[in-house]
Amino acid sequence: MSKVATLPREAALRLSYPASRKVYVQGHLYPFLRVGMREISLQDPDYPAYYAYDTSGPYTDPAVEIDIYQGLPRLREPWILSREDVERLPAFSTALGRAMYENPPATAFPRQHLPLRAKPGRTVTQLYYAKAGLITPEMEYVALRENQRLEAYRQAGKAHPRFHKGQGWGAQIPEEITPEFVRQEIAAGRAILPANINHPETEPMIIGRNFRTKINANIGNSIVTSSIAEEVEKAVWATYWGADTVMDLSTGRHIHETREWILRNSPVPIGTVPIYQALEKVGGRPEELTWEIFRETLIEQAEQGVDYFTIHAGLRLAYIPKTLDRVTGIVSRGGSIIAQWCLAHHKENFLYTHFEEICDILRQYDVAISLGDGLRPGSIADASDEAQYAELKTLGELAKIAYEYDVQVMIEGPGHIPMQLIWENMQKELEDCYERPFYTLGPLVTDIAPGYDHIASAIGAAMIGWFGTAMLCYVTPKEHLGLPNKDDVREGIIAYRIAAHAADIAKGHPAAQWRDYLLSRARFAFRWRDQFHLALDPERAQAYHDETLPAEGAKLAHFCAMCGPKFCSMELTHQLKKLAEKKGLPPETLIQEGLAQKAEEFRQWLP
Amino acid sequence: MSKVATLPREAALRLSYPASRKVYVQGHLYPFLRVGMREISLQDPDYPAYYAYDTSGPYTDPAVEIDIYQGLPRLREPWILSREDVERLPAFSTALGRAMYENPPATAFPRQHLPLRAKPGRTVTQLYYAKAGLITPEMEYVALRENQRLEAYRQAGKAHPRFHKGQGWGAQIPEEITPEFVRQEIAAGRAILPANINHPETEPMIIGRNFRTKINANIGNSIVTSSIAEEVEKAVWATYWGADTVMDLSTGRHIHETREWILRNSPVPIGTVPIYQALEKVGGRPEELTWEIFRETLIEQAEQGVDYFTIHAGLRLAYIPKTLDRVTGIVSRGGSIIAQWCLAHHKENFLYTHFEEICDILRQYDVAISLGDGLRPGSIADASDEAQYAELKTLGELAKIAYEYDVQVMIEGPGHIPMQLIWENMQKELEDCYERPFYTLGPLVTDIAPGYDHIASAIGAAMIGWFGTAMLCYVTPKEHLGLPNKDDVREGIIAYRIAAHAADIAKGHPAAQWRDYLLSRARFAFRWRDQFHLALDPERAQAYHDETLPAEGAKLAHFCAMCGPKFCSMELTHQLKKLAEKKGLPPETLIQEGLAQKAEEFRQWLP
Repeated sequence: MSKVATLPREAALRLSYPASRKVYVQGHLYPFLRVGMREISLQDPDYPAYYAYDTSGPYTDPAVEIDIYQGLPRLREPWILSREDVERLPAFSTALGRAMYENPPATAFPRQHLPLRAKPGRTVTQLYYAKAGLITPEMEYVALRENQRLEAYRQAGKAHPRFHKGQGWGAQIPEEITPEFVRQEIAAGRAILPANINHPETEPMIIGRNFRTKINANIGNSIVTSSIAEEVEKAVWATYWGADTVMDLSTGRHIHETREWILRNSPVPIGTVPIYQALEKVGGRPEELTWEIFRETLIEQAEQGVDYFTIHAGLRLAYIPKTLDRVTGIVSRGGSIIAQWCLAHHKENFLYTHFEEICDILRQYDVAISLGDGLRPGSIADASDEAQYAELKTLGELAKIAYEYDVQVMIEGPGHIPMQLIWENMQKELEDCYERPFYTLGPLVTDIAPGYDHIASAIGAAMIGWFGTAMLCYVTPKEHLGLPNKDDVREGIIAYRIAAHAADIAKGHPAAQWRDYLLSRARFAFRWRDQFHLALDPERAQAYHDETLPAEGAKLAHFCAMCGPKFCSMELTHQLKKLAEKKGLPPETLIQEGLAQKAEEFRQWLP
Repeated sequence: MSKVATLPREAALRLSYPASRKVYVQGHLYPFLRVGMREISLQDPDYPAYYAYDTSGPYTDPAVEIDIYQGLPRLREPWILSREDVERLPAFSTALGRAMYENPPATAFPRQHLPLRAKPGRTVTQLYYAKAGLITPEMEYVALRENQRLEAYRQAGKAHPRFHKGQGWGAQIPEEITPEFVRQEIAAGRAILPANINHPETEPMIIGRNFRTKINANIGNSIVTSSIAEEVEKAVWATYWGADTVMDLSTGRHIHETREWILRNSPVPIGTVPIYQALEKVGGRPEELTWEIFRETLIEQAEQGVDYFTIHAGLRLAYIPKTLDRVTGIVSRGGSIIAQWCLAHHKENFLYTHFEEICDILRQYDVAISLGDGLRPGSIADASDEAQYAELKTLGELAKIAYEYDVQVMIEGPGHIPMQLIWENMQKELEDCYERPFYTLGPLVTDIAPGYDHIASAIGAAMIGWFGTAMLCYVTPKEHLGLPNKDDVREGIIAYRIAAHAADIAKGHPAAQWRDYLLSRARFAFRWRDQFHLALDPERAQAYHDETLPAEGAKLAHFCAMCGPKFCSMELTHQLKKLAEKKGLPPETLIQEGLAQKAEEFRQWLP
């Protein structure tokens, strides 16, 4: 397809953060591990660097050759093979997989790999290993990665008097995250480490409430818009801005190929909703869906390397009538497909009846299940109703079954919830679903903000993150209105990084406040560049500053355009400090001269 | 000034909301009252109209002639005069006021009015009237205005089963807001009605936690940027987007004239920080400030019509050393000016020592006091520290004094507060400040989001609004980086309307959820235009929708570009409903034909 070819072969996706370089931490248990982090250079006299959790993968490492036609380095492949519990299949297991391999269309990803699968009778999930007491390289990787934000914090002596105690509501993030702690959390089912053996490009990450709060970005085309190239670009940029996982929700043409391009170029786990593709295979007619077609789709995607599947297995036939007097009915796409199938056949949801078979497939590839909330409320009016909570209870039952099959599982949550019901929603999830990681879409705390739903939902996301949600699925400004473009993805991700970080501070992540501290130190000392570089979106911060004070010298100014030189309160505080140090009466003349001089400098910087 | 002249004489500021018209509710106690509200026409078969609280004043009434060189109609003047407790002064009381009147500079507002003041010995505040048992026209106006959102709700029979109970934490918003309830809340000091007798252009509004949550927008130039014309335009647009009050924080040249232009053209109360202008008068040297200069400035601004003053009277000398080991010191501009004065003279804050005289002046004009939190935290690290809470306690003492003088008072709050401390902040305010209305700046729940601080702070604002804050001071995306332009004002206001509305839902405002309900009904019925028109920012909602599906026919489509026709879950639910109605086996053929037909229509709408 010509549209694929519009994506530049390389270089264009070589990204970099300002004043940052990629550094690597070596493993201890597994010395071959190299865990990437982003070192931000600071002009802070006490703290010359900050180490940021880095989701951007090799794209920000100039030492790695980037060629999106070849895909990323296959980081985990040797780890996976060395466990000797997988085999490389001679051919893809599905007809579509084989066809794509043998007669690749013009849209196909050029470099192909035959799939891995567990040897007969084996289970290859991180949960299986964790239960067996094995710390995998993936687990140590995660431990180092989660710890990296703690490094500078530890150097600084932890017990900073101005750091606040969190209110964790049961979340307990240790001062040091050890590989053994990671293993325990996975073994207990409180965290998942999505890592399909056919997606060795992933840098391992963990989703659980006793770790850093994660965010997911949805991308994907619909029949209406988007080319493959656009989706790959969105996926890469999403990780640059801070997405911990990406869901490919494509529903249009070239679903298989789009997914392949994204997977081969993604350093973060990829999630999908397989029912979308299954529906395409039956011409968009839900009633023609069958277990066989769905099963085939699961295997097809598992062999491509999808790391987690949203599966709406908890939407039981009996719950559907409970939605009929809702204000907005069923708003989950997957949920409504299943509901339509159930009613058309007047049968129980085939995802529910075949759930054990699903688990049996997924444990052979280590695909995690994200139990979809097909009956999530689509409006404030429908929040926390009988349909929603009935399904939640069933999700808990299914989570238990998955656990027996050693399949990693998380629980999807709403949606639209008014603030006063967010706490209840979180508590019910913890109780009904045995503390499995909660993965919520927002929630939006009001319905009346189309065009700004990233904000309406970031409010709910921050709160539910604080209360214990492990991963927050972003919402973009285009929610309810259209598909997000690249800019919308950026807006959505930063809004959610704010929510997730605020949640980490509130629940007492030992290192979360460290970045705030360094940025505020920079702010107080008028180190403008440090402020920009420590910001969640450095480019935006600098661009806004430069709109009013573009000159180079303004980066050293002891004020900004907001207040101007005479009214900068922080500058006045510095002068106060000087006065206080001298005790007794202050040298007014000094202050006056200082201000006059600054006003003079200032005029030179005006645009 | 040529810059003033760039503002078009009229028409350009004649604004209108889509599908809306201004309608008026007549008073009962005072039949001459005409309370404006915005009637939004809907295509909802059950509810043909929604009545929105309307902050935009006469600008959206085509029957009113708009000429910003003449100012708005002087709505309240006859009400004020009929109380017979004020007198029109023969001249302004201050030298600057007189000079501006007698020899107006080119920048001056062209149409001048001599000031009103209480007759000797009289007090003309709404608090005085309320305590005396008098329901003023302003109070009835407010009651009708607060009630107007309830109208359609009442018509619909209130007890909608899908409306959620609020969790008010002590806030008790009655089902019907009566003039007597308004009077009682003001008399108790739990609410204020800012209404300077020299700002008769204001449409009365109320700030208190038992009413709709309000938001304030800050505008104002600094020495670096902005013309008078820009500021007037920002003020008018701010009310269009939904600002309940506007603070003019100008610090540059032409402070007096800028304020006059804004006041004469503002339908909402205007707040200022008089110390800014006082400081200009002493050449920017805080140590040269005197009580006399400050007093003169208060009177000058009171006679122009400013409705509330931020006064940093609670920042006592003894508290200043508590800020010296802070991460970001003092970040309130007013606070740092006062602190500098205190240290330079080694004397108690003159605003504190002269507080009774301040009250005695303000009661003659009905200027409300917003007790400034000069020691509010400027970073997460400094949140809830000794300095902040010491000042808060003093603000409570001062609020008590103001109450004795019948001066209306509210309390300003932070700032930067991590989520787990927001509750504590609200509780302390209620306890230490005798339930006076709390007026907070955000709070920001993290420091690391420069460029997105409207979002970082909307999270805190929604929560503290829920907990009981009466008015939320917006933060724009430019916070910490530069002065907001018109677009930033829009972003900030909508973010805060979201927060305030979410708070109203959560604390149980009886009618708040009504708008969400109507919008969600429209969403479910694919009435796209109703969705846009009910949105907080109708233009933005429609623009985003049209980006991907611009054709006129798409406004009737049963899907949007987000999912496309086959994947629209809400459309599927409609089909489910049909199926369910028929009971027994569903007519698959009907569904298939329906989808095929939609897909066909759809292709015609593609851009």
